[in-house]
Amino acid sequence: MQVTSSKLSFHEPLSLKSGATLDDYELVYETYGELNAAKSNAVLICHALNASHHVAGVNHEGEPGWWDNMVGPGKPIDTRRFFVIGVNNLGSCFGSTGPKSINPRTGQAYGSDFPVVTVEDWVQTQARLLDQLGITRLAAVMGGSLGGMQALSWSVQYPERVAHCIVIASTPKLSAQNIAFNDVARQAIMRDPEFHGGHYYAHGVVPRRGLSVARMIGHITYLSDDDMAEKFGRTLRQKEDFDYTFGVEFEIESYLRYQGEKFSDYFDANTYLLITKALDYFDPAKAHGGDLQQALKSASAQFLVVSFTTDWRFPPARSRDIVKALVAQRHEVSYAEIDAPHGHDAFLLDDARYHALIRQYFNTRVLP
Amino acid sequence: MQVTSSKLSFHEPLSLKSGATLDDYELVYETYGELNAAKSNAVLICHALNASHHVAGVNHEGEPGWWDNMVGPGKPIDTRRFFVIGVNNLGSCFGSTGPKSINPRTGQAYGSDFPVVTVEDWVQTQARLLDQLGITRLAAVMGGSLGGMQALSWSVQYPERVAHCIVIASTPKLSAQNIAFNDVARQAIMRDPEFHGGHYYAHGVVPRRGLSVARMIGHITYLSDDDMAEKFGRTLRQKEDFDYTFGVEFEIESYLRYQGEKFSDYFDANTYLLITKALDYFDPAKAHGGDLQQALKSASAQFLVVSFTTDWRFPPARSRDIVKALVAQRHEVSYAEIDAPHGHDAFLLDDARYHALIRQYFNTRVLP
Repeated sequence: MQVTSSKLSFHEPLSLKSGATLDDYELVYETYGELNAAKSNAVLICHALNASHHVAGVNHEGEPGWWDNMVGPGKPIDTRRFFVIGVNNLGSCFGSTGPKSINPRTGQAYGSDFPVVTVEDWVQTQARLLDQLGITRLAAVMGGSLGGMQALSWSVQYPERVAHCIVIASTPKLSAQNIAFNDVARQAIMRDPEFHGGHYYAHGVVPRRGLSVARMIGHITYLSDDDMAEKFGRTLRQKEDFDYTFGVEFEIESYLRYQGEKFSDYFDANTYLLITKALDYFDPAKAHGGDLQQALKSASAQFLVVSFTTDWRFPPARSRDIVKALVAQRHEVSYAEIDAPHGHDAFLLDDARYHALIRQYFNTRVLP
Repeated sequence: MQVTSSKLSFHEPLSLKSGATLDDYELVYETYGELNAAKSNAVLICHALNASHHVAGVNHEGEPGWWDNMVGPGKPIDTRRFFVIGVNNLGSCFGSTGPKSINPRTGQAYGSDFPVVTVEDWVQTQARLLDQLGITRLAAVMGGSLGGMQALSWSVQYPERVAHCIVIASTPKLSAQNIAFNDVARQAIMRDPEFHGGHYYAHGVVPRRGLSVARMIGHITYLSDDDMAEKFGRTLRQKEDFDYTFGVEFEIESYLRYQGEKFSDYFDANTYLLITKALDYFDPAKAHGGDLQQALKSASAQFLVVSFTTDWRFPPARSRDIVKALVAQRHEVSYAEIDAPHGHDAFLLDDARYHALIRQYFNTRVLP
C-alpha cells in the first residue's frame, strides 16, 4: 500500500498552554482508507515520541509506517472499514512546523525559540485538522504511550467529538523516575557543545553525541529486563572472551550504540527536548487538585485501556489508575492487561493476543 | 572517632586478568579498632563504585566514612571487638594508584593507559595488603553491591583466608540491562569533547558534563521507583505552576542535576569508566561454562547473603541465585531478603531490621 502525505496550513493564531501564541503553522498528515459519506468512520492515530504521521503503508522512501502491523486492509484496524488519519505533531521534525522550520519573525530556524508544546496543544491542532477535513466526530481516537495521553486528552477536551477512546501502554502522568530519565536525556543533549543553546542549525552541526546518548537512555526504558536478557544476555560481540578494552565487549553495547547513532541520523534534538517536556507536563488531574476522576468527569467516550505486564516505563498500575477513575465516574471502560514479554515497546509489536483484542474491539464495538 | 589513612607501596609485579602487568602501585587504607594478638579479628570491607577506603569515623577533612552507620564502637560491626580494614581499590581516585597517578614509563598521568582492572585483581591486591599487615585469615570479608562481588570473589580466590563472607545487594553477574546502563554512562563520558581520549589531565580540563550525566543515570538506578515517588513525586521546584521552559520544573530534576554536579567535583572520569567495566566483567561462573555452583565449589567460608525487596538494580532474585548455588554445594549460608523501600541504596542506609541482622550475625556467628 503506497501512501503519500498531505499538508495543511493554519493561519488562525494558536494559543498554547504555555501562554505563547503561534500565528501560523503547518501540519503534515496521511490518511488510509476512505472517509464514508456520513464522515462517521474516522479513526485518529496519535503518535508517540519518535514516530510520525506515517502510520501505515509504504511511503515514497519505501519505509513502512510505524504501526503498519495494526492499520491496513484486513488488519486489526481495517482500512476497508475505517478512514484512518495519522498527523505529525506540532514541534516534531517530520514535516509539521517545528524547531527546524523557519521562524517568520527572524527568517532563521526557530531552534530553541520554538514554543513549548503540550499534549493539550497537540489535541487542539489535531481538532483543527479534523475541522478542515470536515470530520466532526471520531469513531475512535487511539494511541500508545504518549499517543495514549493524546487519546485520553481528546476524551476530555472534545468529549462530543470522540465515540471511542483507546489508551495503550500509557499513564495519567509521569512518575518522578520517568521525569528523571527524561531530564537526564535532555541534559545529555543540552550539554553537548554542538547544541549551541538550541541554535545548532545556524552552525551547520547537530548535537549528535548528546542525542544518541539520550536515545540510548530512552531505549533501555522501552525494553523489559527479561526481554533484554533473552535477546542479548551477556553474549559477547563476535568473540569468545573479553578484550579488556573500552571498545564493544557485549552485544547489548553494540545494539544500543547502533540505536543511538541511527536515531541521531534522523531525529531532531530540539524536537526530542520538546516531546520529552510534553510527556513531563501531561497531568490532566493537576487542574483538579490532583483528582483524576474529576479530570475525566466530562468524558463521554467509551474507553478501551490496554497495558502490558512487563512494561516498567508505564506499568499496568498506571493504566489501572485511569480505569479506576473512569469506573468511579461510571464511564464505560474495558481493560486488558496483556502478558507480553517486550516491555513498553510491546504496544508497537505484533503480539497475537494484543492484536486479537484490538481487532475484536473494532469489529464489535466501534461503529463506522 | 578521628581516623587517618595509611599507604603501602607494592613493588612485586601484579599480573592482571587482562594480561597486563603493573610493576608498582600503592594502596591507601584505613583501619578501625585493634588487631588482636592472634590476628584473628580482622574484617575487610570492600567498597562499591564511588566509595573509598574511608569507611568509618571522621577523616581529617571532617567527612564521615561511607559506612559509618555500620562500623564503629557499639555499631553492628563493633570496632571494640573487630579490627576493620577499608582499602581504596586499585584504579580508584582517592589515593591508591589509578589513572590520575603518574605512569613511571611516561612521567605523565596514566589517564586511559591505566590497565583495565577486575574484581579478581582487586581481591589479589587486597590479599597482598593483608600479607603486609600480617593477617593470614579474615574473620569476615564484606561488601554491598560491587563490594559484595569482591567478598564473593574472596571466598573462591582465597578460600582458606575467609571465615565469613557477607554479600549484600549484589549479584553473581550483571544483566544486559545493567551493562546497558553502564555503557550509556561510559558513552556520555567518552563522547564529552573534554575527555580527550582519557588524557584530559594534560589539557587541564575534566569531562564534567559527561561525568555528571553518567552519575545522573546511575543515580536513577540506585533509588526505587516508589522511593523517588515518595521523596519527589511531581513536586515542583519552588513554584506552584510550570514555567514551560527548559529550566528546572520538578524537584527531581534539581536533585539529580545537583547529584551530577557534586559527583563531577570529586570523582575522576577515568576511574568511573574502569569501575563500571569491572562491574561488567564480573562473572565467576564464566570460567566454569556458566555454572555458578562449580564456580563457588572451592569456597569454605560461611555465607550471609542479604538483598532488598525494592532493589531493581540487583534484585533479590540475583542474590537468590548465589544462595541456590551455595546451597547446592552444601556450603553454610544464611539469607535475608529485607523489605526496605530505598532500592539499591538500602545497603548504605540505617534500616533497623538490616542493621539488627548484621549486628546479630557478627555477635553470634563471627568469632574474633
